[in-house]
Amino acid sequence: MFPPSGRSRVVVEDLQPLVDGGRFPVKRTVGEFVHVCVRMFTDGHDVIAGVIQYRFTASRKPGSNPVWQAVPLTAGDNDLWSGIVPLPQAGPLEFQVVAWVDHFLSWRRDLSKRIDAGQDIRVDLEIGARLIDAAGSRAAEIADQHALARWAGHIRLNQTAEAGREACESNELLTLMTHYADRSLATVSEQKGLVFVDRERAGFSAWYEAFPRSCSSIPGQHGTLRDVIDFLPYVASMGFDVLYLPPIHPVGTTHRKGRNNAPACEPGEVGSPWAIGSTEGGHKSIHPQLGSFDDFAALVKAAHGHRMELALDIAFQCAPDHPYVKQHPDWFRQRPDGTIQYAENPPKKYQDIYPFDFECEDWQGLWTELKSIFEFWAERGVRIFRVDNPHTKAFPFWEWCLAELKASYPDLIFLSEAFTRPAVRYRLAKLGFTQSYTYFAWRNTRAELEEYLTHLSQTPVAEYFRPNFWPNTPDILTEALQTGGRAAFMSRLILAATLCPNYGIYGPAYELCEHLPVKHGSEEYLNSEKYEIRQRDLNASHSIRPLITQINAIRRAHPSLQNLRHLKFHTTDNHQILSYSRRVADQSDRLLIVVNLDPHRTHHCWISVDLNELGIPEDRPYELRDLLTGRSYQWTGSRNFVELRPHEMPAHLFEVMVPQ
Amino acid sequence: MFPPSGRSRVVVEDLQPLVDGGRFPVKRTVGEFVHVCVRMFTDGHDVIAGVIQYRFTASRKPGSNPVWQAVPLTAGDNDLWSGIVPLPQAGPLEFQVVAWVDHFLSWRRDLSKRIDAGQDIRVDLEIGARLIDAAGSRAAEIADQHALARWAGHIRLNQTAEAGREACESNELLTLMTHYADRSLATVSEQKGLVFVDRERAGFSAWYEAFPRSCSSIPGQHGTLRDVIDFLPYVASMGFDVLYLPPIHPVGTTHRKGRNNAPACEPGEVGSPWAIGSTEGGHKSIHPQLGSFDDFAALVKAAHGHRMELALDIAFQCAPDHPYVKQHPDWFRQRPDGTIQYAENPPKKYQDIYPFDFECEDWQGLWTELKSIFEFWAERGVRIFRVDNPHTKAFPFWEWCLAELKASYPDLIFLSEAFTRPAVRYRLAKLGFTQSYTYFAWRNTRAELEEYLTHLSQTPVAEYFRPNFWPNTPDILTEALQTGGRAAFMSRLILAATLCPNYGIYGPAYELCEHLPVKHGSEEYLNSEKYEIRQRDLNASHSIRPLITQINAIRRAHPSLQNLRHLKFHTTDNHQILSYSRRVADQSDRLLIVVNLDPHRTHHCWISVDLNELGIPEDRPYELRDLLTGRSYQWTGSRNFVELRPHEMPAHLFEVMVPQ
Repeated sequence: MFPPSGRSRVVVEDLQPLVDGGRFPVKRTVGEFVHVCVRMFTDGHDVIAGVIQYRFTASRKPGSNPVWQAVPLTAGDNDLWSGIVPLPQAGPLEFQVVAWVDHFLSWRRDLSKRIDAGQDIRVDLEIGARLIDAAGSRAAEIADQHALARWAGHIRLNQTAEAGREACESNELLTLMTHYADRSLATVSEQKGLVFVDRERAGFSAWYEAFPRSCSSIPGQHGTLRDVIDFLPYVASMGFDVLYLPPIHPVGTTHRKGRNNAPACEPGEVGSPWAIGSTEGGHKSIHPQLGSFDDFAALVKAAHGHRMELALDIAFQCAPDHPYVKQHPDWFRQRPDGTIQYAENPPKKYQDIYPFDFECEDWQGLWTELKSIFEFWAERGVRIFRVDNPHTKAFPFWEWCLAELKASYPDLIFLSEAFTRPAVRYRLAKLGFTQSYTYFAWRNTRAELEEYLTHLSQTPVAEYFRPNFWPNTPDILTEALQTGGRAAFMSRLILAATLCPNYGIYGPAYELCEHLPVKHGSEEYLNSEKYEIRQRDLNASHSIRPLITQINAIRRAHPSLQNLRHLKFHTTDNHQILSYSRRVADQSDRLLIVVNLDPHRTHHCWISVDLNELGIPEDRPYELRDLLTGRSYQWTGSRNFVELRPHEMPAHLFEVMVPQ
Repeated sequence: MFPPSGRSRVVVEDLQPLVDGGRFPVKRTVGEFVHVCVRMFTDGHDVIAGVIQYRFTASRKPGSNPVWQAVPLTAGDNDLWSGIVPLPQAGPLEFQVVAWVDHFLSWRRDLSKRIDAGQDIRVDLEIGARLIDAAGSRAAEIADQHALARWAGHIRLNQTAEAGREACESNELLTLMTHYADRSLATVSEQKGLVFVDRERAGFSAWYEAFPRSCSSIPGQHGTLRDVIDFLPYVASMGFDVLYLPPIHPVGTTHRKGRNNAPACEPGEVGSPWAIGSTEGGHKSIHPQLGSFDDFAALVKAAHGHRMELALDIAFQCAPDHPYVKQHPDWFRQRPDGTIQYAENPPKKYQDIYPFDFECEDWQGLWTELKSIFEFWAERGVRIFRVDNPHTKAFPFWEWCLAELKASYPDLIFLSEAFTRPAVRYRLAKLGFTQSYTYFAWRNTRAELEEYLTHLSQTPVAEYFRPNFWPNTPDILTEALQTGGRAAFMSRLILAATLCPNYGIYGPAYELCEHLPVKHGSEEYLNSEKYEIRQRDLNASHSIRPLITQINAIRRAHPSLQNLRHLKFHTTDNHQILSYSRRVADQSDRLLIVVNLDPHRTHHCWISVDLNELGIPEDRPYELRDLLTGRSYQWTGSRNFVELRPHEMPAHLFEVMVPQ
């Protein structure tokens, strides 16, 4: 058995970037590009050439494959070739490499050497003329056919070194011969690459999480979606662009939890929004106390008016009263005693929650219904979903569901809330989650932050896993925030917002520096909003709202903070002080950030700035303008002194200005 | 469109070892094993289990797939699982992973916790009994069916914590339930692994290259294959196991090169054996002056009698007089003037050589004929081929040719002589070459050797690229050997033979320390055997034959030198002294080798022995026995002194003896 492409002499291997060998797409956003690398070579000394072919595949229907576009590959060292694929639109894209032995390029290279050596080149000129004839027969344009015929005639008529030299040096001939290169024996890369291009917000966003039921301005009253509309200006004024609401559906009553997660609730208690479903409806209903679908439509519209988007929480689990339980008992695991299996982590029991059984016989019915929940809200204007515990639902479901949804709505954004082991979180990102929660909340020391950020930004993980940094969530009040005081809230915010292009806070708990846990050693909030209504004084003087407003404005003004590239840590001689820079490729935006990680004490240090990274000359002074305080500093050279008083401002956020 | 395996909840990814994602096999030898690693997990908290399935595929015919065998996978950290595949025979093997959610294992784990917590477990016991019932219905053996029925009955009858505890702790039940686990929703890894298992000599061999025509004992006379038979005892006495002969075919006469590569030869000159083919025949003929096929058969037999094998040189190129040129002019590139394109590297011309055109229309005919050359010699008892310049022949040809040949002769060994760029050499190894020449000849300094050996032994390259270290070849007389004197020949031999399980020398030039180049700055030998007959005094007193004999004996006695694993460099404070250890996994064989890389001067140093690597206690003395001199040394701790006089012996080859 001979291989079909036995005469294709170019080897194409090690195509990059690929996720799991091309099984999953790399992620980019509109306006970015993919830098494709590949190893190519052939036997012997012949010259090769190649292109990257790429096409958006979203609109592909049987029989209507979109046409390949192509960009050239350029040779580098060690048989590595590379090229740039532009990404002007959202959606899925595929790419491959096509390469061939180019006999004209070999001929051109060799003819120069022969002429230099003074050899008889008459036969070689005829060989070249025949290559040009052949290209002429492939030429689509008559003008090109004529031009090629002229060149073939010229070197046949003038069998001289001069004519040969002209042919070797002519850009016209090179362009024509490249355009009409003989690709009949071209190699197509066995590996194919995939890219998913998301809209820009997928790569750069500031989230604010708030409980609608706490939004009423009337003390003790259950908030409504209309109250959320009134709350929007507050969130928008801080510069957030995503307002994320915990589940807005009817809350189950059977086994409803009380305040502070009490096993039973008192009459009138509101329960957890994640215990979804009651006789009033399920995942496609709105909690009656929150309002109507008209109210929801008004909220979506009002958010857009504030240049914000609404994100909904999708938690695929049911309270015992959820309509699904009666309609589709086969979607849940049955126990021999006729009851439905509630959630457990033995010996703990969560009797207010029924998980779906992804091994059930009617899995296709279950999948279809779950997907339709996203569609239901997408049709009502939602384009961002925060998905609760995706790692407790079957992975094949997510791959199918996310792909189907993105085919209809390529602008959807999914945030994966999977606080679990790395391989599991990375798999979810590969399967199509746009952004992911991270371990950031528990990375506090300089070493931890440097290691974690290096991992996220400078390993293959960066191709498909987009971190979203949250210093707190309704489930996570870290020890650092419990004990660090207001300075900790300030420094953790600055870290999240300047280390990661996507970040979010759970407010108003965050800006008001709420720090009391339900008990010692717990990360749960005291009087958690998960189980009760909480209303606050948003104008409290200790609120860090002004800092948040400032930081979000700086993020919008500085492109260097809008992706995860070009993050570089700089050495300091005090392990309580973290220093890093952010920049853009052409150095038109450069920030040097210095953070005191100790919220209790003033620290100072000598920083060794990596001048090369920031394009700063060794011997010339440069200016550092602190975007937080407005103060300016003149530095020269690498080694410079910094002191940070955490209670005033735990960080410098320097813009680096290098005089021309 | 739903995926067919939508209910298969286990994710299996990152299967290792794979070469290019499973496109090519990893290489092993008979008696070794493959340590397979894979990442596996499922959603939620269920327990999973899995196996590695593997099968030898050589004998596979349509409709007769060999049966999968299986070994269990064991869980490690970070969702990594691993297992060991044994390799008792030669040939190609494939492997994959199969994994499933194991509801019995989950039940067993959870039941223990429930019992510990004092919960009512009656429903849980019934759930377990049903799992056991189901396994019973899958059980093939009646005895197993009965045993499972007994267990189900036991826990149904005795609905107690004690019965539950017994079921959790029973090895019998665990074994049965593991054996009859429900794999109906198992995941089969998308990635498949390939292994090619070679016979042992592929991984451990000592080669000796000699020109048959120089083997006559009568001065000036053209040697014969019968002379080679007389030469065998000399080679065998040094402990080599492969005798490799340059091409033994008729040598072309047109444009035949003279002594020292002169453009024209004098009458009577023998020409280069690599200018293959004349009116007397081509690649399937024997040079008439060397002898007959009977002589060849006698030589093959005699070599085996000395426990050696013959390796032939296969050079796919033709002298202008080769019969192929007349019979198949279409296999060569035609020039417009009616001549055949000779080999070139413009402006250099090699008019005595015609390369094959792998783009020719009759490529299938060409491939078939080239493959038949290997088959021709394989049928005459040759199982080892050194392939000349494989990188100047089309890569698809090699992939096809080597696979076809190994299907008929799984014991074939191919040594790739591709002195070219790394990616090209690695591709040839992936395509099926068993061993490969390397850059060793030009790696002289400590830093160069450490870097190169670390690359070859401790990166993914080690999975498929088997280096064969040659300090010299007929084409390569390095500057180090030209200028380093006898000590350089000694140290380079010791390095090649103890750093690499496969090595070879071109003799008798090597053992006789021939060091004169044809001209200053050239790596070509003066009066090279490539162009003339050379006869030597094999008993010259400066011959390093005794050292070679000793080294080959040490290699055979010490398993630590027989593969490339467990190579570790130890720090020395003199950059002219290289120190490394070789060991086996269980420390039953440990060598510490110290080489003075400067052939001119005595050097001493302090070595910091990595005691941990060699399993030596910090505080106890250990003995070093020098296998070259017989002298013994007592060392304690890491830091020890060494001095090496290159003219006596440029290296210590210590066996490490640690008292129990």
